Amino acid sequence: MNKIRLHSTGRRIALMLLALLLAPALASAQDVSQEMFTVNNTWMLVATFLVFIMHLGFACLESGLTRAKNTVNILFKNTSIIAIGLLTYAFVGFNLMYPGDFSIGQFFGFAGMGLDPGPEGNTVAYADGAYTYWTDFIFQGMFAATAATIVSGAVAERIKLGSFMVFTTIYVAFIYPIAGSWKWGAGWLDQMGFYDFAGSTLVHSVGGWAALAGIIVLGSRVGKYLADGKIRPVAGHSMPLATIGVFLLWLGWYGFNGGSVLSADPELVSLVFVTTSLAAAGGIVGAMGASWTFQKKPDLSMVLNGSLAGLVGITAGADTVSVNASILIGLVAGVIVVLSVLAFDRAKIDDPVGALSVHLVCGIWGTLAVGLFSTNPEHSFVTQLIGVAAYGAFCFVAAFIIFLALKATMGIRVDPEEERIGLDVAEHGMESYGGFSITHS
Amino acid sequence: MNKIRLHSTGRRIALMLLALLLAPALASAQDVSQEMFTVNNTWMLVATFLVFIMHLGFACLESGLTRAKNTVNILFKNTSIIAIGLLTYAFVGFNLMYPGDFSIGQFFGFAGMGLDPGPEGNTVAYADGAYTYWTDFIFQGMFAATAATIVSGAVAERIKLGSFMVFTTIYVAFIYPIAGSWKWGAGWLDQMGFYDFAGSTLVHSVGGWAALAGIIVLGSRVGKYLADGKIRPVAGHSMPLATIGVFLLWLGWYGFNGGSVLSADPELVSLVFVTTSLAAAGGIVGAMGASWTFQKKPDLSMVLNGSLAGLVGITAGADTVSVNASILIGLVAGVIVVLSVLAFDRAKIDDPVGALSVHLVCGIWGTLAVGLFSTNPEHSFVTQLIGVAAYGAFCFVAAFIIFLALKATMGIRVDPEEERIGLDVAEHGMESYGGFSITHS
Amino acid sequence: MNKIRLHSTGRRIALMLLALLLAPALASAQDVSQEMFTVNNTWMLVATFLVFIMHLGFACLESGLTRAKNTVNILFKNTSIIAIGLLTYAFVGFNLMYPGDFSIGQFFGFAGMGLDPGPEGNTVAYADGAYTYWTDFIFQGMFAATAATIVSGAVAERIKLGSFMVFTTIYVAFIYPIAGSWKWGAGWLDQMGFYDFAGSTLVHSVGGWAALAGIIVLGSRVGKYLADGKIRPVAGHSMPLATIGVFLLWLGWYGFNGGSVLSADPELVSLVFVTTSLAAAGGIVGAMGASWTFQKKPDLSMVLNGSLAGLVGITAGADTVSVNASILIGLVAGVIVVLSVLAFDRAKIDDPVGALSVHLVCGIWGTLAVGLFSTNPEHSFVTQLIGVAAYGAFCFVAAFIIFLALKATMGIRVDPEEERIGLDVAEHGMESYGGFSITHS
Repeated sequence: MNKIRLHSTGRRIALMLLALLLAPALASAQDVSQEMFTVNNTWMLVATFLVFIMHLGFACLESGLTRAKNTVNILFKNTSIIAIGLLTYAFVGFNLMYPGDFSIGQFFGFAGMGLDPGPEGNTVAYADGAYTYWTDFIFQGMFAATAATIVSGAVAERIKLGSFMVFTTIYVAFIYPIAGSWKWGAGWLDQMGFYDFAGSTLVHSVGGWAALAGIIVLGSRVGKYLADGKIRPVAGHSMPLATIGVFLLWLGWYGFNGGSVLSADPELVSLVFVTTSLAAAGGIVGAMGASWTFQKKPDLSMVLNGSLAGLVGITAGADTVSVNASILIGLVAGVIVVLSVLAFDRAKIDDPVGALSVHLVCGIWGTLAVGLFSTNPEHSFVTQLIGVAAYGAFCFVAAFIIFLALKATMGIRVDPEEERIGLDVAEHGMESYGGFSITHS
Repeated sequence: MNKIRLHSTGRRIALMLLALLLAPALASAQDVSQEMFTVNNTWMLVATFLVFIMHLGFACLESGLTRAKNTVNILFKNTSIIAIGLLTYAFVGFNLMYPGDFSIGQFFGFAGMGLDPGPEGNTVAYADGAYTYWTDFIFQGMFAATAATIVSGAVAERIKLGSFMVFTTIYVAFIYPIAGSWKWGAGWLDQMGFYDFAGSTLVHSVGGWAALAGIIVLGSRVGKYLADGKIRPVAGHSMPLATIGVFLLWLGWYGFNGGSVLSADPELVSLVFVTTSLAAAGGIVGAMGASWTFQKKPDLSMVLNGSLAGLVGITAGADTVSVNASILIGLVAGVIVVLSVLAFDRAKIDDPVGALSVHLVCGIWGTLAVGLFSTNPEHSFVTQLIGVAAYGAFCFVAAFIIFLALKATMGIRVDPEEERIGLDVAEHGMESYGGFSITHS
Repeated sequence: MNKIRLHSTGRRIALMLLALLLAPALASAQDVSQEMFTVNNTWMLVATFLVFIMHLGFACLESGLTRAKNTVNILFKNTSIIAIGLLTYAFVGFNLMYPGDFSIGQFFGFAGMGLDPGPEGNTVAYADGAYTYWTDFIFQGMFAATAATIVSGAVAERIKLGSFMVFTTIYVAFIYPIAGSWKWGAGWLDQMGFYDFAGSTLVHSVGGWAALAGIIVLGSRVGKYLADGKIRPVAGHSMPLATIGVFLLWLGWYGFNGGSVLSADPELVSLVFVTTSLAAAGGIVGAMGASWTFQKKPDLSMVLNGSLAGLVGITAGADTVSVNASILIGLVAGVIVVLSVLAFDRAKIDDPVGALSVHLVCGIWGTLAVGLFSTNPEHSFVTQLIGVAAYGAFCFVAAFIIFLALKATMGIRVDPEEERIGLDVAEHGMESYGGFSITHS
């Protein structure tokens, strides 16, 4: 999904169109016909609205898996994040992520404030005729906010609203795009041959590392880990809401992965649809098996997270692994996510929605899986490992510092009484389910 | 979105295709290639299903922001409206809105009952090769029902089901399309230079004026405004449902605005995606700031309405304002919607879901904003104001008369006991949440 | 939607492109230009994700219309079905449904295990340039799981999870695709002239017959039909959830029917959008009238099922009946579904969500309606009737045998105490609405 890969996609399209382009009737300064430009751009906009709907998916999943007393707060955060994400991406993020030239090695560059389609701007000349400047911005902008949303679920039910907003703004405006530039902006990891098709690492792990930092700085929810060593399960308040969330996320993934082809190339986009779908299916089967085995009864939230695990797992290599490999990647991700959720809980890492297991752990798995299963011999396990480590170090440290700074200044955790009555009343002065009789545990 | 504008869009496409069209191999009687026709038409159908899903968005938003005892009633109305809207649009609306020739000045025309693609009908010759006759009908038909849906929320929790159905049928069959013909059907306001890209006025204010008339004729809900001058807040019964509604509406807006380009033109559609997205983001930020400032605690329903306010605000000028202007339009809309909701409540105009503030007030703001921010020098603030006033006068008076006539005949308000127990049991004999313990305030 | 029809669609496209194809500049071994291939394929992938979202629609509708104590179980089943459906379709289903050559008459064929795009594979040569091999698989795969989902609702609230899973796997892996091959795989019913555009019979009735078999083998829910002959209504637990489900199903139908054109052909796809929409609208009006007449008060679940009835009804002939006929087909379906729901209940056939009435009865109606209203003189009522009977005999008998075999081995019904406390706790050890006070009837 970076300019480098884009050029090779463009080259392939160009080759397929060779006969056409040789015909004088169609010869022109541009690489593809106006028709091809239009269909490519249309597909990218379809992918854009699919990624958009993932934000509703996250909102539903996170609120469904947590308690009714914190629902307004979670919905508020998820609604705000998309606004903050789009606006900061317009002001600085887009130009940090695709700087053109890097000013500090291949680590950092900045193409200036705000959006500017330039003189040739919004024309077919841009992106080898695959889409316009505006399409590029809005597709990437929809991605940007996703990373912060991942954090939202992990720190739910105890973080201060204002502090979360400040964290999100900084992380999505600076950390996410700078990290992204290393690969999709043609930076040092891209030069090295690191591969991440649609963001197992660049989006999901980048969000996951920040989630881990947040959980560590915040601590666990009151009453979750008891003095006698027992773990108290905190049931989500609406499994239908969680299920709606997961299906909407899966739907959005057709744009997330399908749009990362960066054109409507029939062969690649349809392959990506198949690998994405079968990995999600594999994740469900893997999680169902693991849950039935280890938990005795098949747990719906595990199966839901299993489908997401498969989707995160396939995201790094959806265009470069075989269909059979995609099933295997998904299956393994489904097993991993169940074991990971149980392990984090045992380690008293309190992640209310399983975000670490889904996005961080399976993001790492998916990125490494490219090294194992890619049909492209240039992809290497070692390079993938270097990429995983580099993103982990940068993002975890950056998020940790931001959270610590916020803790020292604004404070990041609501007081215990506010946590007990719930953030809806404490932070927003309203209830999520007016009229319903609810026991707030 | 009228034939006039369409021609100019067609002309632009034609210019871009000039080199292609000059080539004998592609020369034909039609303006665009079969490929371009197909991609344009496909995009318009995608836009159509996006607008369709807005009806679910309205259903969720309206029921989420009202009480559980009236939920079945609201869902019933919203499900019926889409049916009534599509069928009446097929029978008369489409041919009232796009009459071809006007029989009474430029104010009224009618191309006959029912749908008829004509002898050349459904071919590339139609609409400069942008889409088929059937696509035109179904895309516009999805719009039609939206206006009536806006009314639904404003008159919720107290209107008689049968009377609402009759109102909706008349309004969507006659008033909406006649009003629409003045601009999109190339009528007198179009001749005058009035501009409304996708319907800040033609859809949202048209619905909003009827909502205002309905509220005035109906009066406020029992117990909302107390004798001692106090205003009793009536909390919605499900904020997740309201949030789902808003995100689905936002999703649908990519078709509402994106489809109003009336072709898949890459430059215009992608620009519209960006202005639409950033205005919604601006609306969220504006409403968050206003709510945090004026209400002390940030109110989720305000932020949700803020995003819709931004979307309604940008709808009139999404293709003709700069990206920076779109952020500003959204920000202002977000502030306006908060102040407007508080002001209507103080004025004892009882609008349960804030429909007036979102659709009427921000619809007016968006239409006037074209006069302030349009990059097209032909757009003028005065003309925009004339359009706003003309639509206000016609729609408010028409709706007021219909509501009064219904009040005098069928009656329009349920009796107080029915209102107390809720319309679900009173009108439908069923409950929305079987088994749940709910206090019906 | 079979290869036969596909060829004729391809032929029509080819004719329209004749002028283009005669031009040497564009002459090539393939039938359509790369541009047309790309837009066709893109539309088919859009249709694919629309059909995908129908699975969420089913999950919401089924859980909304049943009791809160069985919600986790229903969501679990619906999430699993899509995984089982996609994986079995990849392993055997796709090659059973489109066997190429039949080995046993025109009744059964198998093209081998697993997916194989072949040497030319995923290229424009496949499917007359309409889409790639991978697109074909994933679009059809999304359909496959739908049939099993229909069963899920009918047998809800009393079937054992494990047994349902085994049934689903067998039915979707073998029965659905073998039955499908008779028509869409160019088998004996296709040879005979039977027509089913998008699956009134091949998907909906195929699911419906299995649902009927399941209900008969399982018996009714405890406490539904009382000893004194009274019928106890079992209210669904969330009408918003059911409504969301119906609208998502309707949305998905634009892909289900629109994608069954098997190309982006502007004329056909847009006609299908119109007939599909108006039939759904007709279904709502028909069901509203019938419900208001026969039940005294207009029942929301009837109107919701009315829209689905219209959609199922139009599915067999969406591309071959007039727009006026589509309204009539929908209206009749809406009336039928109300009468059918009441009749099944009187006959003590316990179908918690009305799946038989919607999918089986209206599937039959839609298939026969092709014989009555098709504009193609080759379609005959008698042939349609033969098709309906053949599918009924095969699917009902097959499903009945499988259910009986499961009953004799694993058992298919939970014990009465489990049924009383609900399958959520009994089968999954969790609740769907943590914290809410709910009376489990």
